[in-house]
Amino acid sequence: MGEAQTTTPLDTLHHVAVAVTNIGVTVDWYTRHFDCRVGYQDDPWALLHFANVSLAFVVPEQHPPHIAILGDPREYGAPQKHRDGTRSVYTRDPAGNNVEILALE
Amino acid sequence: MGEAQTTTPLDTLHHVAVAVTNIGVTVDWYTRHFDCRVGYQDDPWALLHFANVSLAFVVPEQHPPHIAILGDPREYGAPQKHRDGTRSVYTRDPAGNNVEILALE
Repeated sequence: MGEAQTTTPLDTLHHVAVAVTNIGVTVDWYTRHFDCRVGYQDDPWALLHFANVSLAFVVPEQHPPHIAILGDPREYGAPQKHRDGTRSVYTRDPAGNNVEILALE
Repeated sequence: MGEAQTTTPLDTLHHVAVAVTNIGVTVDWYTRHFDCRVGYQDDPWALLHFANVSLAFVVPEQHPPHIAILGDPREYGAPQKHRDGTRSVYTRDPAGNNVEILALE
């Protein structure tokens, strides 16, 4: 709008997975304090949907904390296919944070 | 749509701030790999805008990692007023993660 250059659409952050000690206790706390919806929950991880993005919780010994960004995982390696039909590759940022490049289909 | 119950709108996650070792190196890596826009950057922290949410980077010795969710901070304590006009209160989830309840105005 009013800019001379063509602007590229920004990428979408799919979810951020933060480390917790107990998935059930954590999901209970967030759903009591915020309007969010549980998309998935089991012992080592859960996915909470907010209006604009999802927040995941992981028990770090079983599932590493990570930042998931939508993109083409093939640009980063051989994608791993997940049971839900998504494909992804993990890489690391310079600080060592796990970054998941995720394709939903 | 088609649901019998009234559904409450979901809350909005404003940003997640993850720990890094060097802000400049990190911002350079994310902006080279992803279409995102630098909203703010100085030595202890930066804010990158994605299409749907922002991702912040913090040097944890100076600024704690946290999850920022839009809401009424007064429900959690006496809000701190920031220079940009926003107000917030920090609380902790059961795992000890810092959760910032943020009002933009």
